[in-house]
Order: sequence, then structure tokens, then C-alpha cells
Amino acid sequence: MSDYRPPLQDMEFVLGELAGLPDLAALPGYEEVTAELAASVLEEAGKIAAEVVAPLNRNGDLVGARLENGEVVTAPGWDGAYRALRDGGWIGVSSDPAYGGMGLPGAVGAAVQEMWHAANMAFALCPMLSQSAVKALSACGSQAQKQKYLSRLVSGEWAGTMNLTEVVAGSDLGAIRTKAVRSGDHYLISGQKIFITYGDHRLTDNIIHMVLARTPEAPAGVKGISLFIVPKFLVNEDGSLGARNDLKALSLEHKLGIHASPTAVMSYGDNGGAIGYLVGEENRGLEYMFVMMNSARLNVGLEGLGIADRAYQKALAYARERVQGKPPGGTSSSTIVDHPDVRRMLMTMKARIEAMRALAYVAAAALDRAAHDPDAATRDQALRYAELLNPIVKGCCTEAGVEVASEGVQIHGGMGFIEETGAAQYYRDARITTIYEGTTAIQANDLVGRKLLRDKGETARAALAEAARTVETLAAGGDETLKAIAASLGKGVMAAHDAVDWLFAAAAEDARLPGAASVPLLRLFGVVLGGHQMARAALAARRHLDAGEGDARFYDAKIKTAHFYADSILPQSAGLLAAVTSGARTVMSLDHDQL
Amino acid sequence: MSDYRPPLQDMEFVLGELAGLPDLAALPGYEEVTAELAASVLEEAGKIAAEVVAPLNRNGDLVGARLENGEVVTAPGWDGAYRALRDGGWIGVSSDPAYGGMGLPGAVGAAVQEMWHAANMAFALCPMLSQSAVKALSACGSQAQKQKYLSRLVSGEWAGTMNLTEVVAGSDLGAIRTKAVRSGDHYLISGQKIFITYGDHRLTDNIIHMVLARTPEAPAGVKGISLFIVPKFLVNEDGSLGARNDLKALSLEHKLGIHASPTAVMSYGDNGGAIGYLVGEENRGLEYMFVMMNSARLNVGLEGLGIADRAYQKALAYARERVQGKPPGGTSSSTIVDHPDVRRMLMTMKARIEAMRALAYVAAAALDRAAHDPDAATRDQALRYAELLNPIVKGCCTEAGVEVASEGVQIHGGMGFIEETGAAQYYRDARITTIYEGTTAIQANDLVGRKLLRDKGETARAALAEAARTVETLAAGGDETLKAIAASLGKGVMAAHDAVDWLFAAAAEDARLPGAASVPLLRLFGVVLGGHQMARAALAARRHLDAGEGDARFYDAKIKTAHFYADSILPQSAGLLAAVTSGARTVMSLDHDQL
Repeated sequence: MSDYRPPLQDMEFVLGELAGLPDLAALPGYEEVTAELAASVLEEAGKIAAEVVAPLNRNGDLVGARLENGEVVTAPGWDGAYRALRDGGWIGVSSDPAYGGMGLPGAVGAAVQEMWHAANMAFALCPMLSQSAVKALSACGSQAQKQKYLSRLVSGEWAGTMNLTEVVAGSDLGAIRTKAVRSGDHYLISGQKIFITYGDHRLTDNIIHMVLARTPEAPAGVKGISLFIVPKFLVNEDGSLGARNDLKALSLEHKLGIHASPTAVMSYGDNGGAIGYLVGEENRGLEYMFVMMNSARLNVGLEGLGIADRAYQKALAYARERVQGKPPGGTSSSTIVDHPDVRRMLMTMKARIEAMRALAYVAAAALDRAAHDPDAATRDQALRYAELLNPIVKGCCTEAGVEVASEGVQIHGGMGFIEETGAAQYYRDARITTIYEGTTAIQANDLVGRKLLRDKGETARAALAEAARTVETLAAGGDETLKAIAASLGKGVMAAHDAVDWLFAAAAEDARLPGAASVPLLRLFGVVLGGHQMARAALAARRHLDAGEGDARFYDAKIKTAHFYADSILPQSAGLLAAVTSGARTVMSLDHDQL
Repeated sequence: MSDYRPPLQDMEFVLGELAGLPDLAALPGYEEVTAELAASVLEEAGKIAAEVVAPLNRNGDLVGARLENGEVVTAPGWDGAYRALRDGGWIGVSSDPAYGGMGLPGAVGAAVQEMWHAANMAFALCPMLSQSAVKALSACGSQAQKQKYLSRLVSGEWAGTMNLTEVVAGSDLGAIRTKAVRSGDHYLISGQKIFITYGDHRLTDNIIHMVLARTPEAPAGVKGISLFIVPKFLVNEDGSLGARNDLKALSLEHKLGIHASPTAVMSYGDNGGAIGYLVGEENRGLEYMFVMMNSARLNVGLEGLGIADRAYQKALAYARERVQGKPPGGTSSSTIVDHPDVRRMLMTMKARIEAMRALAYVAAAALDRAAHDPDAATRDQALRYAELLNPIVKGCCTEAGVEVASEGVQIHGGMGFIEETGAAQYYRDARITTIYEGTTAIQANDLVGRKLLRDKGETARAALAEAARTVETLAAGGDETLKAIAASLGKGVMAAHDAVDWLFAAAAEDARLPGAASVPLLRLFGVVLGGHQMARAALAARRHLDAGEGDARFYDAKIKTAHFYADSILPQSAGLLAAVTSGARTVMSLDHDQL
């Protein structure tokens, strides 16, 4: 019996009502997509997530991955679970059918991803990293490279990894030192990479490492970084595997969480140089990384969402079972789900999860439109919207993941602190999500610099204008609850506008101010745009209720959850706005010795 | 070399300027206390904390406590560290000199406690639990019991524990089932207790367990609980140790954090009944527990504060060393302490720590006044103030501890997730503090029920009136920074007033509303009263600067930190007020099946 229940009903609601799946299905390349197909895909993935992947999670945490004789041994059951994903074609769920992918919209793929992460985040990182390699190769690889590597990554026969970080080069990739020296048709790679997720394992016959390195004559900084394909086993012309390449996992990290995900220190070129193949052109590696960054960051956002939902489900199950004390107004002991503060925590978790799910799937759908819409202007607009949402989804879903997992521990009381209970694992696992694939500060800098200042706030203002139209729609009807949501969302939208206005003035005044304000500003956008999605959800639910169609209990809950979000979470926007507009000025006020 | 630097300067500032140490020193019983004495006590404790206790913390986490042949073996170095505390008389730092205590004010004791917790929380729990036993016995024990047990607990020759929780009785102690059957001059105790901190160990020759149990004819619920002294080894009339009592540690928990603190399942009476001695009268056990609850909860608040400061110090040291990327406006790579968002996190940590430290020491000083002031009315007023602050200090210092420790991980980036770095340990250790000694919800219920509704909000309004007078003082001078602090604090005070007004109306309307609003209301009071202390600190710093006395760099930093708090943290009060006044109404809106 699995303790993970895939939230299929909410997923289908969000895809259909908020992410515009019917419209996506009308786009070229998605002709065969229907709501029924999406539902059956989610159901099938949900079964594997709940029955095959989720049950391995706790034991994976206990046993972890280990390095034996220079090779990584994954946790018990990992082989079988990987086989289940591979055999079902799940690694290529949103990949190009030309290379064997299912070709489903990324929005549907996002829901599938969420389930793997909720079920077992340490496991799900393996296919997730392969998908990043697929994205990078699809966008930037040569035809020959695609033919050689892509279909076997998409099928899951081989796995992929991303090798970016070095000891001195974390958030600042410009500091990368790994060397790549040209040698005929290939390069010889040497250097050390750290924090390489699934840097080694035997789940697949081969691992394709995507490695950032620097050629001898490359310019300094980020403009001198190139991207290379460095396979664990070289691949012969006929596709068969050749010699072992000159690379190995030196050690695995001892981590706070995701113990079963092998995080390796990778050494390249200890014996003369690992053979690597240039992707695209020299010195454009970072640019290529940005191509896959939207989907990679979205995927980490989905990790935050997935683990939050798992933590919520576990806490809810406990709250329904645990009898303790008499709730106010009650006459006898009852399960703690009836204690108002436990309920407040559950509602907070639920509301944040639903808002983040909507925001993440909407962002994924925007990427689908950006890739598939026949109209170039629509594609461009969709891409800009997706790129605005990207750091917000990554930043806010992961911060929510950490906070929701912490509430999950709290609901368990003393039992939450006991490892056997399992709630603590989510709290530990979730903690990496705000750090890797760009810390929250990096996301916030991206939002402020590339997404707001660069286009003069145009895309952001358009997104806020859309929210303002939703406010008008909510307020126009006679429904008191929708009016209350409108009032709160309206204030949030105003706050976000004020923050954008402040940003432009502040950037002109002092280059450090946008950075000092960036994370509160990111969170403000997350709270407000999440609130906008909840408001849209409430409107859709109201429509269905009025039409007397569908699951009335579900729609009723959606409206009440949106109301709770509007009353309890959206008002945080006032404090966040103040942290932006006043707080940022005092951030740098102390000298080093005064800290 | 220790990596913990006791924050002596801020401690002395808070004690002297905010907690009113000069006034305390004028009270009967504290005649020998001077600022110089307090400073030298803190310096001495700080040395032991930094040099003896702190260096054991990481290894304690790795090795943990373990059960061997039915006895607990503590982590390496624990014996020596315990000896250092015992030999220095530190366990009785605030205990009655009549029983060998140092007799220092609890406010000074609070600063000492903070250092033990910051140095090594898993270790510090041992003396902390002894102090709880001392408090309970001091207040409620007979003269004979005091003579037999108290001086040896105060000296640290023996240790004490608190045995409250059972499997079905956590937050609801009324459900306790452990039995106590009268047998001549003693009782026979049988039953199982869980989550018993330092339930067994060999740091001391004897352990005095304070056990809650129920006599056969006792009324149901909380009114039928009695308190017993149950020594590990029986104590002969001459004070020598007699037979081993019928009790043992069955197992130790595997916990998320504080691995080196043995958390035992204790079994009493497996062989006929453990011998226990009634404290006070039958059925008044819970009442006696409340006597020591103020200090016990304050101590856990100090844990949150201590671990927050340790996490801050570690993050700051890393931020000063780690070179990564060019900060905005900079021309070359620099240490991350100059990156605005890292600085924002450091300032947030620092400001919250200073506010919580002030609030905690002020609460401790109020308890000192409540015990020592010669005037009964003043004592009563001080007690009510201390009791108002108590759940706020416990609730908010521990929530801050968890959040600050999480920011500490974040500042370390990927390294924060690696256990060897140490930041992750604080994140794990801190997580228990919002749970034990009453969860945050229990604190919030205490605030709302016993501290606000019961006295019609009188004490709370008096505390807010004091804050309002501070606002006037700040606004009256010509200092622009102080005026800005006044404006923000004024809004916060208004928000807290509105929340109290709402509470009375809501309680009359629906018994569940206060519970649904309680935690946001607790946090609101924490933010506002913490802001009040920061404002008082800024005023005091300004006075010293104007007088040209003392450490100008420190006072300057204090004002700027208070300014940051006012601009970045106090504005959260708007969102918290909304969560109280609007949010609470939707908390219970879903049916069980809709969650």
C-alpha cells in the first residue's frame, strides 16, 4: 500500500482550466492530445509513482547511494523503478517523437514530473537530469550528435548528467577552470567537477555527461565557456559501446537529504584527458545552458511542489488519525484535524500547493506555446511570459516546499522529529531545492535583471494587467466570496505594481538596491501571481457549480481554498512591498566589522 | 579554536539597557549583583561555552548517544564538559544560595543558558532539565524533599528529568495513564513515558525523575494528575545511594537532530513498581508543572535564540571567506558578504536575533521582579507581564531559530547541504524547539486563552501602551532614523491593538475562531514586541552616542539594525493582522473529505 495519492483531480483541473490544455491541443505537433489522453497518461504515471517509486523512498533515505570500488551502487529497488520508467517511455514524456519521445506538452510532462518528485525525489533526479541533457542536445547538438545520443537518452537506455559546478565556481560559472584541449575531432577534458547529481551509477549502460569547460585560448569569464559531450563509455560508429572514458566519480557527498541521489565529485582526465565532443561552437556554452535553463529550473520548482504535496498528504493522514485533546467548542477528545491551528496549517499547506501547482503548470504551458504556436509574435510573447514566470516558479515553489515540509513536521508534533515517521525526510530533502539549479537569490536576480529591468517591466506589467482583469471579473458578479477574493488580489496587484515602479527608480539610483530588494520582490510576485491563479481557479469552479456540472464538492473546496489564500496568504504582499521599498535601503548599511 | 564567539557585548547591552539589570540589582536577594559581576560571570561562562562545550557539538551529532546493555552512553567529551559546568557551579547559576546556588538574577542566567545552547544544544539539555527539576522542587517540594534532593541537583552532583509525555498524552496531558499506588510512605509507579530527554546517562551518580502519574481514585483528565519524585537510585536517610529503583530506559529515539541528547522511552514498574514520593498534594501535579513552566518555556526560547546566533555566526564567517561573483556595482570578484542578497539574509538573521534576545531577557527580568520585588502589587504586575511574554518568547524565538538556521544553510549555498559543513546540523537541531515544551500552537493557545481573554487583554494593552510611549519618544526627537522607526513601530502597535479587539469579538461569536487566529496573533505580538525592544535599543544607543560614551561602532550598528528591523520585519504585521481578522474565518471552512 502506497502512502502517496497522486492528486489527479487537481492536476486535471489545473491543466484544463488554468494552463489551457484544450488550446495547447490545437497547436501543431499536439494534434493527438486530448483531455482524455492526458488523464490516462497521468493516471498511468500516478500508478507507477504510487506503487513502484514511492515505496522505495524511506529505505533509499536510510541506505543511500554508496561508492564501491570506484563505482556507485544505488539504493535497493532503484533498478526496478528505473526500468519501470524506462519501459513506460516516461523519460521522454515530453520529448520529440522523432527521437522516440511521447511528444506530450510540457504542461502534461510537468504533472508527471511532480509525481516522480513527490513519490521519491532522490530517485526522480536521475530521469530529470537525463531530460536536461536531452533539452541541451536537442537545442544545440549537431544532427550527428542527436542521432548518436539523443534517442538513447530519450528512451532511457542511457542517462545524462549536467556538469557545471566546480569548487570555486558555483553561482559564478565564469570562474570555471576545467580544461578542454582540441585533439583532432574531439577535445581532451581535464578537471574536477563537484555536486554532480547521478554522476555515476549502473542504472544504465552508459552515462552522457554534459560538461562545461574552457579551451586554452578562451576569453576570461562567462564568455569563454564551452559545452562538451563526455560519455562514460565511448560510443562506436555503429552505436555500440567502446572503451571506458578517462573520468570517474571520486567520492560522494554526505548530505542533509536526498541520500539516495549520488552527488559525486567527478574527476576528468586523470590519465591524459577524457574524450569530449564540442556541442555547437566554442565559447557559447553558457548560452546553450540558458536554452535548457527554463525547463531545468521549472523541474526543480516541480520538486518543491511535489515534496510539499507529499508532506501535506502525510500530515493530513496523521491529523486524521491522531486523537489528542478537546478542540474549542468540542465536548470530547477528537482527531487533531479538528483543532483549529492544525487545520490552519493544513489549509496553508493546501492553498500554497494549489497556487504553486497552477503557477508551475501555467509556466510549462507558456513554454509549450513558445515552442509550438504557429504565430511568431504569439511565440515571442509566450516565451517572454514563460521566462518571467520561470524564476518565480523555481524560487517560490522551492521556498514553499521547504516551508510546507516544515509545517508537515510541526503537525506531527514530537513524532515529526523522529526519523521513522518520515516527515523529517521531506524537511531534509526539500532543503536542497532552494539551492541547486540557481539559489533563490540567483532566481531573484534573474527576475529583477533579465526579466524586469531589461524589458522595462513590460512583460511583468502585462501579467499584472491580466490579474487586474481577473479582479474585475471577480468583482463584477454577485458572489460575496469572489468579491472578497477580488479585494485582496487587487491589493496584491497594486503592491506588485508599486514594487516594479520602485525598482526602476532604485536601479537608477544605486546598483546595489535591486539586489537588496530582489528576493522580497520575487516572493511578492510569487504570492500575487499565485493568488491570481487561485482566483482564476475560483472563477472556473464557480462556473461549473453554476452550470451544475462536475464534482461539486471539489469545486466548492476550490473556492474556499482560494478564499483562504486571499485572506491569509495574499496579505503578506504588504510586508513584502515594504521590505522592497524601505527595507532594501538599510540592507547594506553596516560595515563588515559591525555584522 | 572554537568557532563560537559568545555575543558578550550585546548580552551586556541588553541586560543593562533593556532588561534593567541595575534595577534588578537593587532588589532584595540581589544586593551583590553589579554590572561588573554580571560581565565577569558571562565572560567566564562564555569561555567554557566556546572552548569546552562548543567543540564537542559536531562530533556529538555524528556519534550520538546510544543504549548499551540497558544504560545510556553519552557522546565523547560529554563527561568532561559536564564536569566543567558542575565544577563551575553553572547548573545553579540562578538557584537559591540556601541550596548552593549562585543566586544570580534569571536574566543573567538566561544569557548563560543562551551560550550553552548556542555552543551545543544536545549537551545543554542535560543541565537545562536539571534546572526544571530544581524549579519544580523549589516551588512545590516539602522541606524534607528539598533537603534530600535540592542541593545535589543545584550542585549538579545529580541530574533531573521531566517525565510528562506518554504515547496517547502529548499536548493533552489529561490523557496520562501512568499509575501511582500508595504504599506506606511512598507510591508504586508503573507505566511508560516517552520523549524523556536525558532519561538515562552516567554523567551523574543519580538521576531524579519528576514523573506525572495518576492515583487509582483520581478524577479523570488534568485534575487527576499528581507529581512524583522517582530517583534512579533510592536515597538513604544519610544521603547515600541505596538500591536501584524499578525503572529503566527501554530505547532511544532516532531523531532528526540533537543526536547526542538521549531521548528515552522510560519504563517504570516492570518489577512491581518504582518507588516514588509525592510532591505536594495528590491531583495537583499539573498545577505544579505550571509553576516551572515559565522558566522551562523561557529556556526553550533561549535554545531557539542560541542556535539562531550560532547559525548566524557560521554563515557570517562563511560569507566573509567565500569569494564568488561580482556584486552589483563592483568591479571584481568579492566575498559574498558584499552581495546584497547575502547581506539581506545576514541582516535579517542579526536583527531577529537581537530582537529575540532582548525579548527573552526582558521576560526573564520580569520573572525576577515577580519573585523579588518587595511590593506585592509590583510583583503581581511583573508576573502578569512575564506570563504574557512567556508564550511569545517560547513561540517566536523557536520559530525564529528554525527560520534563521534555514537562512544559514542558504547562505552556504551547496555547501550548506553537505553535513560536514555543519550548517545543516543547526537546521536539524533547531527543528525540535517549536515542538517540545508545548508546540507553537500550544503557546499561541496559552497567549490567547490564559494571557489575553482571561484578563480582558489588560496586560497586553499595557504592554502595547508602553510600546506606544516609546513611539512617542522616538518621534519627539529630531533624528530621522528614529522617526522612521517610530512610524513603523506605531503601525505595528496599532495592528496588535486591532488584533486584540478582534479577538474579543470573535471569541464571543465562535469558540473556534481564537484558535484559528492564535498562531498568526502570537507571531504578530512577537514581531511588534520584538520591534519595541529594538526601538528601545536604538534610543539607548542614540543616548550613548550623543553623550560620546562607549563603543560608538556598536551603538551605530544597533541603530541601523533597529532601522532594518523596522523597515523589513515590522511591516509583516499587516499580513499577520489580516491572517487573524480575515483568515481565521476560512480556516475551518472545508469538510474533512475536501482536505
